[in-house]
Amino acid sequence: MKTKVAIIGAGPSGLLLGQLLHKAGIDNVIIERQSGEYVLGRIRAGVLEQGMVDLMREAGVSERMDAEGLVHDGIELVFGGRRDRIDLKALTGGSSVLVYGQTEVTRDLMAAREASGATTIYEAANVQLHDVKGEAPYVTFEKNGETYRLDCDYIAGCDGFHGVSRKTIPAEVLTHYERVYPFGWLGLLADTPPVNHELIYAHHERGFVLCSQRSATRSRYYLQVPLTEKAEDWSDERFWDELKARLPDDVAGKVVTGRSLEKSIAPLRSYVVEPMQYGKLFLVGDAAHIVPPTGAKGLNLAASDVSTLYRILNRVYRDGRTDLLEKYSQIALRRVWKAERFSWFMTNLLHEFSERDAFDKRMQRTDYDYYTTSEAGLKTIAENYVGLPYEPVE
Amino acid sequence: MKTKVAIIGAGPSGLLLGQLLHKAGIDNVIIERQSGEYVLGRIRAGVLEQGMVDLMREAGVSERMDAEGLVHDGIELVFGGRRDRIDLKALTGGSSVLVYGQTEVTRDLMAAREASGATTIYEAANVQLHDVKGEAPYVTFEKNGETYRLDCDYIAGCDGFHGVSRKTIPAEVLTHYERVYPFGWLGLLADTPPVNHELIYAHHERGFVLCSQRSATRSRYYLQVPLTEKAEDWSDERFWDELKARLPDDVAGKVVTGRSLEKSIAPLRSYVVEPMQYGKLFLVGDAAHIVPPTGAKGLNLAASDVSTLYRILNRVYRDGRTDLLEKYSQIALRRVWKAERFSWFMTNLLHEFSERDAFDKRMQRTDYDYYTTSEAGLKTIAENYVGLPYEPVE
Repeated sequence: MKTKVAIIGAGPSGLLLGQLLHKAGIDNVIIERQSGEYVLGRIRAGVLEQGMVDLMREAGVSERMDAEGLVHDGIELVFGGRRDRIDLKALTGGSSVLVYGQTEVTRDLMAAREASGATTIYEAANVQLHDVKGEAPYVTFEKNGETYRLDCDYIAGCDGFHGVSRKTIPAEVLTHYERVYPFGWLGLLADTPPVNHELIYAHHERGFVLCSQRSATRSRYYLQVPLTEKAEDWSDERFWDELKARLPDDVAGKVVTGRSLEKSIAPLRSYVVEPMQYGKLFLVGDAAHIVPPTGAKGLNLAASDVSTLYRILNRVYRDGRTDLLEKYSQIALRRVWKAERFSWFMTNLLHEFSERDAFDKRMQRTDYDYYTTSEAGLKTIAENYVGLPYEPVE
Repeated sequence: MKTKVAIIGAGPSGLLLGQLLHKAGIDNVIIERQSGEYVLGRIRAGVLEQGMVDLMREAGVSERMDAEGLVHDGIELVFGGRRDRIDLKALTGGSSVLVYGQTEVTRDLMAAREASGATTIYEAANVQLHDVKGEAPYVTFEKNGETYRLDCDYIAGCDGFHGVSRKTIPAEVLTHYERVYPFGWLGLLADTPPVNHELIYAHHERGFVLCSQRSATRSRYYLQVPLTEKAEDWSDERFWDELKARLPDDVAGKVVTGRSLEKSIAPLRSYVVEPMQYGKLFLVGDAAHIVPPTGAKGLNLAASDVSTLYRILNRVYRDGRTDLLEKYSQIALRRVWKAERFSWFMTNLLHEFSERDAFDKRMQRTDYDYYTTSEAGLKTIAENYVGLPYEPVE
């Protein structure tokens, strides 16, 4: 087999990149270790920045998103029981976010991929990248007992934190930056109407809470829990009780409980690897960086990597601008670090850190007071939440 | 002796409070442990917020300050060799700061005090506060071998971090918040023209630098140094060499060196005690809180405490509003914590923390990049640097 761009991973980044390249007439093949059903089964983010919405439209995959996505012009923060609305639209001069689940994004991208006739190979075992530093890179994998070889010009590593792409780069080339937080998020998905029409991010002494949603009838709630907790120890009843205990009374009173569709614990981590490229291999999204979910940046940051790589590859094939290739990491990392900063800021601002001393706890509270009462402070939260501008590729 | 308000300490806070009260016809006596010459000999801050400038004018002590003070419409920040000007005036809609040394402020206030005929007792030994929780507080002290007693309605503790006022309050009443930074500032004062017409706050891997000034012919420079350093180990030559090594080349080339008039090392600390009052005793300025000097907030924060206490006492004597007295701590602390936050933020942003890991160092750099490239971020720095609004007393 031969293609221009081999894309490793059929998550939303890989699929979106594939669709953009396909529309631009750049042949590509996606290779995915898991089945399509498995990929769709992962419950992830649900807040899309304007930049990602625009990119979905550019890829021609926005019909259902535009019809069903919920435009949110604001979010609510809570600290010490005080509710503060961040008016995203007013504070940013018109920007907002779109609530539309990552699962739905993936579903739409899979359908578009199938309709396009472009090749996606699911359940590819033992995926290996070869000669990525040389002139003729290729990918090998096994499927149904046979070994295949895919020759290509470039490889996009969209295979997440645990994928093979980053691991292919020699260790001595990479610098890792990491922060592991001393807690995780216990998430619950339920077919109940959301407690509020906008997302609520709440600090409480018992721990942080996020009241999120996937649609007008599907809620997603999160509780900060110690890393030692296990999801199976949390009955639905215990979850709902704890959720209400951490919310202001007027909010808690409106929570509609119901049977959970899914419950799981995810650790919180900040992680960046530099550089994001090695020879003809380019890392995209979670393969290169992880953000704690507090800023709703994970999927959106992957989308901005996709945009950067797509625009560079487009110039390469259209105008022969191979000089742009070596700029990918540098361009992508500028926005990556700013999103890492905001995710870290929001995580530090809103979680309960039991190990913090009295001074640090007062600073956290004072940070909250300052940023939610100063117009400039509010704008820093709003402009980051809706997403900083995409970096130009030259 | 008898007076309405006994003021402990003849530093700038005590003198400014005394002058404001005197102008309002409220009798007061200032008691100071040191001599006037000693007080004047302390080299301290040199940047006045608009709020403090206005307060000096309200006290009728602004003539020389208005004539000789240098209006600064901006400051410069440096990180990784990149210079970024913070246009205070444009970013705040017209506010600026005034460069006028604390020594000069004190000198002007001492002269005004002397001209007013109000009583100031210098070199008062063994100052003690009595019955501050009761109906009839009084102060005792010794002078020239005699013991004196000063009866009063209220006591203002303007005697700094090491003074007797805070120590008079029972320990179980107070909560202390503290952060000690792992470095100090080595300061040098010289009669040389400043390297730049505005202040420069510079991060460098070798440590932070501040290029400050007292006038067009008197410079004040600071170097971040480990707490283990001793000022006597720093010859003038070594200081100037190290200063230049930490500044961008174009700035270093303009440094005019000269003989030092003073050289000393000060530790950096964040400290707040709550509450700031106990019975008829009210803590003002450094007696209740310390900020690291990076935000130029120490003197200015004392001035806002003075303003709050003066306005409350004025309402008490003019309108009998004794109910306001118990609000002093609460009102003052709102602004204290915000100034503590900014001082802590600037200290964290611009110093070299050798113990920080790679992630934290990149976050520091990214914080700098974000706050100096976002208009909203720049505004948060500017509005805090020129000083947040004074809190109303009711």
